[in-house]
Amino acid sequence: MLTPTLADSPIHQRMAEELSRVESRFRAELYSDLDCVNELVSYVERYRGKMLRPTLVIVAGLAAKPDEDVAEPLRIVATVVEMVHMATLVHDDILDEADVRRRGHTVNHLSGNEVAVMLGDYLISHAYHLCSSLDDASISRRVAATTNVVCEGELLQLSNRHNWSLDEPTYFDIIRRKTASLCGLCCHLGALLSGAEPGVVAALERYGERVGVAFQIVDDLLDLTGDEAVVGKSLGRDLQKQKLTLPLIHHLSTADPEQRRSTLGLLSDVSEDQPAPRGMLRGLLEGTGSMAYARGHAERLVTEARDAVLEALPGGPAAELLAGLAEAITQRDR
Amino acid sequence: MLTPTLADSPIHQRMAEELSRVESRFRAELYSDLDCVNELVSYVERYRGKMLRPTLVIVAGLAAKPDEDVAEPLRIVATVVEMVHMATLVHDDILDEADVRRRGHTVNHLSGNEVAVMLGDYLISHAYHLCSSLDDASISRRVAATTNVVCEGELLQLSNRHNWSLDEPTYFDIIRRKTASLCGLCCHLGALLSGAEPGVVAALERYGERVGVAFQIVDDLLDLTGDEAVVGKSLGRDLQKQKLTLPLIHHLSTADPEQRRSTLGLLSDVSEDQPAPRGMLRGLLEGTGSMAYARGHAERLVTEARDAVLEALPGGPAAELLAGLAEAITQRDR
Repeated sequence: MLTPTLADSPIHQRMAEELSRVESRFRAELYSDLDCVNELVSYVERYRGKMLRPTLVIVAGLAAKPDEDVAEPLRIVATVVEMVHMATLVHDDILDEADVRRRGHTVNHLSGNEVAVMLGDYLISHAYHLCSSLDDASISRRVAATTNVVCEGELLQLSNRHNWSLDEPTYFDIIRRKTASLCGLCCHLGALLSGAEPGVVAALERYGERVGVAFQIVDDLLDLTGDEAVVGKSLGRDLQKQKLTLPLIHHLSTADPEQRRSTLGLLSDVSEDQPAPRGMLRGLLEGTGSMAYARGHAERLVTEARDAVLEALPGGPAAELLAGLAEAITQRDR
Repeated sequence: MLTPTLADSPIHQRMAEELSRVESRFRAELYSDLDCVNELVSYVERYRGKMLRPTLVIVAGLAAKPDEDVAEPLRIVATVVEMVHMATLVHDDILDEADVRRRGHTVNHLSGNEVAVMLGDYLISHAYHLCSSLDDASISRRVAATTNVVCEGELLQLSNRHNWSLDEPTYFDIIRRKTASLCGLCCHLGALLSGAEPGVVAALERYGERVGVAFQIVDDLLDLTGDEAVVGKSLGRDLQKQKLTLPLIHHLSTADPEQRRSTLGLLSDVSEDQPAPRGMLRGLLEGTGSMAYARGHAERLVTEARDAVLEALPGGPAAELLAGLAEAITQRDR
C-alpha cells in the first residue's frame, strides 16, 4: 500500500518494525495449549493482507506525535483491530461462501462452516481479551461500540440482498457501518493514545472513515473488474450473492428502462454455483459511465481524506504517509 | 429450575425481579436504530431458556452477602453472561445445523447461516460493550479469558467429531472448557462483585464448574432419552453429528468386541438427514449400564457442588437455593 517514494524511508522502516511487532503479539495472544487450535490459528495467518487497520493505528499515532516512541497501548490496539478484522474475514467467508481468499483455501472450505464460526469467535474473544489488558475500560468500550456498528452494517447488507432497488444512501449507510467505522476507530485511537488534541483526533477519525469508504468502493470495483490471480480472492461474489454495489446502483438508476430490464435479467440469472458474467456486466456498466462514477466517488473521498489530514497536522513523514496511503487506495489492483 | 419448596419464598421473588431486570437490560443494550436488527433480536429472545447463567451470578452474589442489595455491577455481569450464552446458542445452531430450538425455528433455518453468524457476533459484541461499561477492566478481561476457553472447548469438540476412540479425559476437557468455565465464571464474579472473601469466591467458582459439568452430562442424556416435545429442541443431534458423549464413551469402552462392533456399525450409519436410531442405541447403552453410569457421574458432581457451597457459606436462603439448583439439575427433563 505504501507509495514507492516512501518505501525506503526511515518512517517506512519504522512502520515495518511496528507491523512485525503486531504479528508477533497476534501470535502470542492466540497461542493455546491445544494443538488443534494452534493449527487453525496458523492457518488464519495466511489470510493476512495489507494490514491496513494496524497501519492506520500506528501512522495516526506517529502523525499526531511524530517525535515520540510508539506507546505500548497503541501497539496493543493495533493488534486488536487486526484480530477484529481477521475475525470478520473468517466469518465473511461463511457469509460469502467464498472458496478462495488470499490465494489459499478458506477455513470453511477446508474444515466446514462450524469450525470457521468458532475460529472467528476465538479471534473476536481474544481481541477483547487483549484490549481489556489496557487499564482504561473506555478503550474496550469504544472498540466494542464499533464492532456493534460493524455487525449492524453486515446485517443491513444481508437484509438488502436481492434488493434491486437499493439506493445510494442505504448503500453508504451499509459501507459506513461495515467498513468505515473500524477504519475511523483505528485513526481515532491511534491519535488519542498518542495524546493528540481533540481536534486532531476528530480530523484523523474523519480521515479514517473516508479512507474506509473509498477502500470499500475500490473493493466493489475489483469484484467486477479485478484479476482473480492478482487480487488473490474469489471475485464476482457480490454478483453471485446478489449484493448491489455502487457501480450497479448507479447503472440501474441511470439506465433507460430497456437497458435496466436487460441488466436485471442478467443479475437475476446469476447463481452461487456458476461464475458471474462479469465481462457482460462490465460492458453494460461502462455504457452508463457507472464504473467511472464509482471511481470518481472514491477519488473525491481520498482527496477529502488527504486534505483533512494535511490541514490538521503539522506535516512530517507520518502525515505524508497518511496522505500517500489515501492516494494508493484508488490506485490499487488488489 | 427452582425446587418447589422455594418457589414462593421471598428469595424466589427477589430472583424473579432480578431476572426480569436482566431481560430489560438485555433488550435495552441490543436496541438498534435499524429495524432489521431489532426484528432479529426480538426473535432471539425466543431462545431464552432457564436463565441458568444469570441466576448463578445473582444467587452467588446473594449467597456471599445475603443482607445487602444486589449491586449494579452484578446485574450488568448477569446480563453479559446471558448475552454470551445466547450468542453461543445462535452459533451452535450453525454448528449443529439444528432446525428446532426452544419450540421455535432457529435463526439459521429462517434466515440462513449468514444472518445467524452475524447475529451471534452482534450479541457477542454487545456483551463486551456492556461489560466494558464497568470501570474495572479486569472484569472484562476475565469474561474474555473465559470466552477464549469456551471457544477452545468448541474447537476441541469439533476436532473430535467422528472420533470413536474419544476417551473420558478428553470428553471432560471439552465439557470443562465449553460449559463449566462459563458457569464457574458466573459464580466467581457473583461472589467477587459482592465483596466475598477469596475463599468463598473460590468455593463458589468450584460449585459453578461442577454444576456446569453435571448440566452438560444431563444434556447428553436428554439428547439420547429426552422427549422432543418436553425438551423443546431437536434431539439425537449429538448422534447425527457423530459427537461422542459420556454414556457412549462408557459403552464403547466396556462393551465386548462384538457389541462394540455392532454399536459402531449403528453409529457410522447415522447421517444428518435422518432421525438417529435413539431407541435402539438406548437399548444397547442400557445393556452396559452406561446411562446409569453417566447419571451417577452427574449426581456425584451435584453432591460435591452442594457440599462445597454449604461448607463455605454461612447458610441462609441463597445458599439453600444454590444447593437446590444443583439438585434440580439431575432431575430435570428439559
